[in-house]
Amino acid sequence: MIGHPFLAGLLFAALTVPAIAAEKPLSAKDSDPDKLGWMQGFPPPPDKRLRAADGSFFEFPALRYSVAHMREFVPTINVSRGTGAPVSLDYRRDPLIDKLRFLPWGSNEAMTFSDAFDRNYTDGLIILHRGEVVYERYAGALKEDGQHAAMSVTKSFTGLLAAILAAEGKLDEMAKVSDTVPELAGSAFGDATVRQLMDMTTGLQYSEDYADPNAEVWQYSAAGSPWPKPEGYTGPVGYFEYLTGVQKQGKHGDAFGYKTVNSDALGWVIARVTGQSVAELLSQRIWQRLGMEQSAYYQVDELGTAFAGGGLSAGLRDMARFGELVRNKGRWRGEQIIPVAAIADIQRGGNRAAFAKAGFDKLTGWSYRNMWWVTHNENGAFAARGVHGQTVYIDPAAEMVLVRFASHPVAANGANDPYSLPAWQAVADYLMSIKTQ
Amino acid sequence: MIGHPFLAGLLFAALTVPAIAAEKPLSAKDSDPDKLGWMQGFPPPPDKRLRAADGSFFEFPALRYSVAHMREFVPTINVSRGTGAPVSLDYRRDPLIDKLRFLPWGSNEAMTFSDAFDRNYTDGLIILHRGEVVYERYAGALKEDGQHAAMSVTKSFTGLLAAILAAEGKLDEMAKVSDTVPELAGSAFGDATVRQLMDMTTGLQYSEDYADPNAEVWQYSAAGSPWPKPEGYTGPVGYFEYLTGVQKQGKHGDAFGYKTVNSDALGWVIARVTGQSVAELLSQRIWQRLGMEQSAYYQVDELGTAFAGGGLSAGLRDMARFGELVRNKGRWRGEQIIPVAAIADIQRGGNRAAFAKAGFDKLTGWSYRNMWWVTHNENGAFAARGVHGQTVYIDPAAEMVLVRFASHPVAANGANDPYSLPAWQAVADYLMSIKTQ
Repeated sequence: MIGHPFLAGLLFAALTVPAIAAEKPLSAKDSDPDKLGWMQGFPPPPDKRLRAADGSFFEFPALRYSVAHMREFVPTINVSRGTGAPVSLDYRRDPLIDKLRFLPWGSNEAMTFSDAFDRNYTDGLIILHRGEVVYERYAGALKEDGQHAAMSVTKSFTGLLAAILAAEGKLDEMAKVSDTVPELAGSAFGDATVRQLMDMTTGLQYSEDYADPNAEVWQYSAAGSPWPKPEGYTGPVGYFEYLTGVQKQGKHGDAFGYKTVNSDALGWVIARVTGQSVAELLSQRIWQRLGMEQSAYYQVDELGTAFAGGGLSAGLRDMARFGELVRNKGRWRGEQIIPVAAIADIQRGGNRAAFAKAGFDKLTGWSYRNMWWVTHNENGAFAARGVHGQTVYIDPAAEMVLVRFASHPVAANGANDPYSLPAWQAVADYLMSIKTQ
Repeated sequence: MIGHPFLAGLLFAALTVPAIAAEKPLSAKDSDPDKLGWMQGFPPPPDKRLRAADGSFFEFPALRYSVAHMREFVPTINVSRGTGAPVSLDYRRDPLIDKLRFLPWGSNEAMTFSDAFDRNYTDGLIILHRGEVVYERYAGALKEDGQHAAMSVTKSFTGLLAAILAAEGKLDEMAKVSDTVPELAGSAFGDATVRQLMDMTTGLQYSEDYADPNAEVWQYSAAGSPWPKPEGYTGPVGYFEYLTGVQKQGKHGDAFGYKTVNSDALGWVIARVTGQSVAELLSQRIWQRLGMEQSAYYQVDELGTAFAGGGLSAGLRDMARFGELVRNKGRWRGEQIIPVAAIADIQRGGNRAAFAKAGFDKLTGWSYRNMWWVTHNENGAFAARGVHGQTVYIDPAAEMVLVRFASHPVAANGANDPYSLPAWQAVADYLMSIKTQ
């Protein structure tokens, strides 16, 4: 699945189709990157070396190291926090959370929240209740002052930036994509609306099936690789050029189709509308406004283009600050940082009928809006999701923000959802049941 | 001079032999990277694209962009600032500094400090007097919250880390290098002492003459490149492996010979002694202790090894904080962060007779100690220096720390020293003449 030409690990969708690993993978404890010694030693011995160019860095269990060290493998662009003092988080740690029990999907045997931490190969998990940290735990290669790959959670940042611009009247979501990016006129994106891009209801001939060596994702991956192109390479150079050649399949607006290229096309639209890359805009609009502890970063292609579909790495607590901003509908420490309308539009959700056509069997009744996953459950929860277990899960009714970074052996979230989504619900139920001052 | 196989721009010495550009280069104003539009646009047009792999990113005038964007071209490792609040600097801006006049070396025509700013292609310049910022100015591609390549100023960090370990008794500077790094036993470094490494008095068959296509620096550059090695490449992989093959020329201890490989060999010694890379150690010992505003970073080879000879990028004000730590002999806001002995040993300087043999004609009476340049002038000034005009200049008598980042078209500092060193002296004289509360 990985190990294919280029950067396999860098370019995936948050597929939620259940996937089964060929053999039983090492447990979280046995695959601990410190224990396995990846890249340790001066220099690391040959069998402990990982490289991006051959994909070895993103094969399990090596990916348990790499998710927290992306910048050491590929060029990256800074998402500056600015130079001010971080806004500190308040703590009210609750030891009972680890003891909460829930029923994994399809199981009659209860599991504790703490057990699920390892079962899901969690690298970092933080929970905020009413803005206070009630849970925070690190494992694997992630440290408090480290950054973890957010994978397709990145898409939700891209979608939110677009929603902000739309709410501010700077981006016409009903306009054709080619009105903003003429280079896309001849591609499938040309006659799609910006809104269709934002909700991924474009009709594209584009497969992200890593098992298929002819899937378009491999050409995308080659185009976006930061390394010098191989001798004789004649394909597109960079994410943007690749997008100009994406062909149409089906009709725009009919069905949700989870395809990373939509996010990068949206990133292109954003860049053209603002004159800023998503990295610059994210810094200006969010990272410099929330008192982040750490700067974040995007991986870039060889033209310096930030990978808006999956390239963000950030600190766990900073992701929690971001989640709290979203939970509070764009308000942060008494100031409206981003328009209420941008968040409200996410929470309303997307077209559920269109979503149902995409075949995410276990996510019944969900929708996708502005590149966020909307559960439409009783609590109105919605989430950013990325492969190998990345999530920012916001439960408005429970006044809860939960961020998890992970390095699950199976990319598709279908493998961890049964041990994750009911666990989040158990925490939400618990938090709604307790009284705080 | 650049444009040769790999990473030419990344691997140079702070040569101070005067060099003359083939034709008159663009002025600072005309070579302004914003004006020239490097890497601007989505995507940047072909004639504005810069790449590390073909060396184009480090040819003047493109380097004026790249010096402040290194991480966008190559993989890097974080030097974490931690997550606390930055320690703010106090300001007492002095507008008179820009008006100070000095005589450039070999000239009868006075120049103002302000004129020298552009003459030297300065990207950022900050001056602290008694710990207060009296001057701070940015230009080119550098922003307050940006990071600039420090080039061979990096070496002085490596040397200082070693001096700290020596002062703490953790590193025996009289021991043979091969006692700590057995892999170097068969190389020229094998029978050198750690002290000889620290002062670059090793006898090495190693040329950093970029004009010579057979110079060893090209093999070093290829070994340290972060990109996949070309088909059929059989040379060493990574900085460390290259070092094991460096051959001896002459006798250790006889003469100063400014060769970058000494710094990387010292980085290897440091890593073995502490079990930490220079990036980790710099973070732990200095970057997390001074209330830095920004994390810094090193470029790495394909094995993740930080380039201890020239790979550091950092913020201007953070470099000033560092300089102030050194000026105060390791004391910072009432706390002794690093041993006095480590700084005192730098200030005493190295062997001036050995230094004289290296042919730095214009630096009469100077010496090199712990990878710092010691002027032995009346004020006891000493400096870290890197190509294209990078410096951290410390004048104890004037209670002055001056940091300059630049992107001078000529790599060798001989090209800017005539307009820099007398300018620093003029500021020192001025600061010593004024009274402050």
